Amino acid sequence: MDDCTTLVPSAKGHAVLRREPIEYADASPEVRAVYDEIMALRRIDWINNFWKVLAHDPVALRRTWEASKQIMAPGALDSLTKELIYIAVSVINGCRYCIASHSAAARRQGLTQAQLSELMAVIGMANQTNALATGLEIEIDARFAES
Amino acid sequence: MDDCTTLVPSAKGHAVLRREPIEYADASPEVRAVYDEIMALRRIDWINNFWKVLAHDPVALRRTWEASKQIMAPGALDSLTKELIYIAVSVINGCRYCIASHSAAARRQGLTQAQLSELMAVIGMANQTNALATGLEIEIDARFAES
Amino acid sequence: MDDCTTLVPSAKGHAVLRREPIEYADASPEVRAVYDEIMALRRIDWINNFWKVLAHDPVALRRTWEASKQIMAPGALDSLTKELIYIAVSVINGCRYCIASHSAAARRQGLTQAQLSELMAVIGMANQTNALATGLEIEIDARFAES
Amino acid sequence: MDDCTTLVPSAKGHAVLRREPIEYADASPEVRAVYDEIMALRRIDWINNFWKVLAHDPVALRRTWEASKQIMAPGALDSLTKELIYIAVSVINGCRYCIASHSAAARRQGLTQAQLSELMAVIGMANQTNALATGLEIEIDARFAES
Amino acid sequence: MDDCTTLVPSAKGHAVLRREPIEYADASPEVRAVYDEIMALRRIDWINNFWKVLAHDPVALRRTWEASKQIMAPGALDSLTKELIYIAVSVINGCRYCIASHSAAARRQGLTQAQLSELMAVIGMANQTNALATGLEIEIDARFAES
Amino acid sequence: MDDCTTLVPSAKGHAVLRREPIEYADASPEVRAVYDEIMALRRIDWINNFWKVLAHDPVALRRTWEASKQIMAPGALDSLTKELIYIAVSVINGCRYCIASHSAAARRQGLTQAQLSELMAVIGMANQTNALATGLEIEIDARFAES
Repeated sequence: MDDCTTLVPSAKGHAVLRREPIEYADASPEVRAVYDEIMALRRIDWINNFWKVLAHDPVALRRTWEASKQIMAPGALDSLTKELIYIAVSVINGCRYCIASHSAAARRQGLTQAQLSELMAVIGMANQTNALATGLEIEIDARFAES
Repeated sequence: MDDCTTLVPSAKGHAVLRREPIEYADASPEVRAVYDEIMALRRIDWINNFWKVLAHDPVALRRTWEASKQIMAPGALDSLTKELIYIAVSVINGCRYCIASHSAAARRQGLTQAQLSELMAVIGMANQTNALATGLEIEIDARFAES
Repeated sequence: MDDCTTLVPSAKGHAVLRREPIEYADASPEVRAVYDEIMALRRIDWINNFWKVLAHDPVALRRTWEASKQIMAPGALDSLTKELIYIAVSVINGCRYCIASHSAAARRQGLTQAQLSELMAVIGMANQTNALATGLEIEIDARFAES
Repeated sequence: MDDCTTLVPSAKGHAVLRREPIEYADASPEVRAVYDEIMALRRIDWINNFWKVLAHDPVALRRTWEASKQIMAPGALDSLTKELIYIAVSVINGCRYCIASHSAAARRQGLTQAQLSELMAVIGMANQTNALATGLEIEIDARFAES
Repeated sequence: MDDCTTLVPSAKGHAVLRREPIEYADASPEVRAVYDEIMALRRIDWINNFWKVLAHDPVALRRTWEASKQIMAPGALDSLTKELIYIAVSVINGCRYCIASHSAAARRQGLTQAQLSELMAVIGMANQTNALATGLEIEIDARFAES
Repeated sequence: MDDCTTLVPSAKGHAVLRREPIEYADASPEVRAVYDEIMALRRIDWINNFWKVLAHDPVALRRTWEASKQIMAPGALDSLTKELIYIAVSVINGCRYCIASHSAAARRQGLTQAQLSELMAVIGMANQTNALATGLEIEIDARFAES
C-alpha cells in the first residue's frame, strides 16, 4: 500500500511520512480515476486537499470516496440538510478543515445567512443542554420509549 | 436561588443536593408557569425530566426554556431539520438523555426509518472524516474562502 | 433575521455568508445597544470578535449577551471561579478562541501564575482519570448517592 | 506487573482480564498501603471503586494517587474550587463515574444548591459559546495577548 | 431503504423507528449474507447487536462490514495493535458499547492483563497531556517537521 | 510555586501570565535537571516546547516527566505501539501539538507510510462506528462479558 514512498530518505536519514497533497499530474491512474469522478460529480475543476492527502493510501481514497458519494447523495434527506448535519458534527469535533470545506459545500447549495444563523444557534443550544443533561445526571423518561 | 432546598439535612448530616425531578404538584408558581407553557406549546400533558430537574434553579429554567422555544421554532430551517442537527450534536457528545428525548421529538414530527438511517450514516461519515482531516493535519484550501 | 446581507453576491455569483466582524460604526442600533452594554459592564472601550461576528444575528447577539451577563455575574460563585470553570470547559473542547478570551478575562480578575498552574494541573488530572474510569468501565459506588 | 492474574482461565478458556474491584482483604501490601493513605487523608473508612479497580496495576495505583494527592490539595486554589473544575471537565467528557464521585466530594466540602446551579449554568454557557466560536471560525483578537 | 418498516404504527399512532436487533431468523437474504460472512471470518456462531441493529439499513450494513473487514485485517499493523487503537478512540469518545465489544475482541486475540494496564496508562497520559498542550496554547516546534 | 514570575507587570499594569517557553539558559537547576534527563533518554540535544512551557511549574514538570518516562517506556507493549495509541487519543481530542510531537516520535521509531495509513484508517473507522453505536443506542451484548 504505497510502500515505495516509505523509502524516500529525509535529510536526517528518516523515512519521510507523506502527508502533502498529491497533485493530479503526479497521481497514479487509480488515484486519477477517483479525482476524475470527484470533479465530474461536483462539476468543478479542482480537487481539495482532503482527497489529495488521502491519496497516499489509494485503497482508503477509493473506499472513503465511495462511502461519501453514497451517503451524501440526496435521498430521504436532501443534500443541504446532510451538509448541515455534517457541519454540526464537525463543529462539535472542532475540525476546522471540515467546517471550512462543508461550509463551502453548503454555500454552493444555497445556504442563506439566516439558515447559517439558525444552524449555529441549534448547535450551541444542543451543546449547552447536552452538558446540563449530563451534568445533572438526568434519568431518561420512560415515556420517550413509548412515543 | 432556591436556597431553602439547601437546608434539608441528609441522614448523614450533609446538605442534600437536589437533582431529583420537581413534580407539578410540588412546583412553585414561577416553575408551574414554565411547565404550563411547555405543555401548551407541545400539546402534551406531561413534563420530561430535563425541565423537572432544571426547575431547582427557576431562573435557569426560564432562561433555558425561552432560548429553546426561540431557537427550535421553525424559521429559515424547519423543525425536523433542527431536531436532526440537535441529535447529531448529542450523538457526538454521547448525551444519552438528549439522544432519547430528541429522537422522540423527531418521531413526533414524522421522522421516517429511512431518514433515521441517513442521519446516522451522515453522522458516522462526518465523524470518520473529521478524524482523518485532523489526524492527517490537512491544510485548509484557499479556494474554500472564495466560494 | 439579517436577511439583507444574504443578497450580496460574491465575485463567483454565490451569496456571501458573513462571518467577518461587524464594527461599531457599521452596526445597527440594536447591535450598538448590546456593544454599549458590553463596554459599560466591562469598563473597556472595544468589543471582541465573538460579539462582532455574532452580530450578524442580532437576536442571537442579544440572547447570548443576556445569558452571559446573568450567568457569569458573581453570585454563589465569584467571578474568577466562574472564569476557571469556563476555561476548563474550553480546554476540553479545544476551543482556542475561548481559551484566549477567558484567559484574558481571568488575568483581568487577578489570576496568578500559581493559580494558572494549579488550574492546568487539575484539568489534566481530571482528563486523565476520566479516561481511566471510562476505559476500565468502573461501576458507580452506591455510597456516592448517600453522601 | 500483576502478571499472575493473567493466568486465570475463564470458563471459555480465555485469560480473564480483571476489572473488578480488589477489596482490602484481598489486596497486596503495596495496594493496602495506598488504601490506608486514601482513608487516612479523607477520614473515611472505605475505598471507592476507582482505586479498587486501578489496583490491578499497583504501580499505576501509586502513581495516580500521588499525583491526585498533590494536585487536588488546597494551594493557590482551594479544594472546592478544584472539585468544581474537575466536575466541569468530567461533564464535558461525559464521565458518569467521575461526575458522581466528585459531586460527592464537592458535597462533603460544603457545595450548596445555589453553587451547584451556577456551576452547571457556567458549564452549559461555556459549552454553548465554545461551539459558536468554533463554528463561526472566529479569529482571536490581537488585544487578548496584550492584556 | 427499508421503507416498509416505517409503516408499522405504534400504539400511539406514530411510526415506529426500529433500533431493536434483527435476528438471523427474521433477516432478509442480503442481511443474512453479511451475518454469514461475519460468523465465518470470526469463527463464531452468533452476531453482536451492533450489526443486528445496523441491519435495518442493509446498504449501511454491507458498507460498514466491508470497510471494517478491510481496515481491521492484519496488515502493516497486526490485529491486536489495531484493536488497541480502536479501544483508545472508544475510550476518548466514551462509547461504552465499543469499549465492551473491542475489549472482548482484544481478549480473544490474547490481550494480557499487563498489556491492558499499559494501554489504559497510555490513554490516560495522552488525555492528560493533550489537555495541558491545548490549555497552555503551546506552539508547535519547527523541528517536528524536520524529523 | 513560581510566584516571583507573577509579579512582572505588563505594559498595561496586569501581571503577566507566563506561557512562553523557558530556555535552558534561563532555567532553574531543578528545571535543568529534567531537561538533562529528557535529552539523555531521547539522545537529542534540544527540548520541545511542551516541557519548556510546563517548566513554569517545576513540580508539574517533574511529575509529568516521571509519569511519561514510566508509562511510555517499552513494557508489555512496545514503544511504537504506545506512540500509536497516543496519536489516536490526540486525534480524537484534536490536539494539534500532540499529533505533531508524537508523529515525530513515531517516525523516529520507524513508523512506515503503510503503518501511518492503517493507523488513520482504524482511527477513522472507530470514530465512525462509535457514533453509530451511540446514536443507535445499541445495548451491550451479554456475551461480551463471558468471553
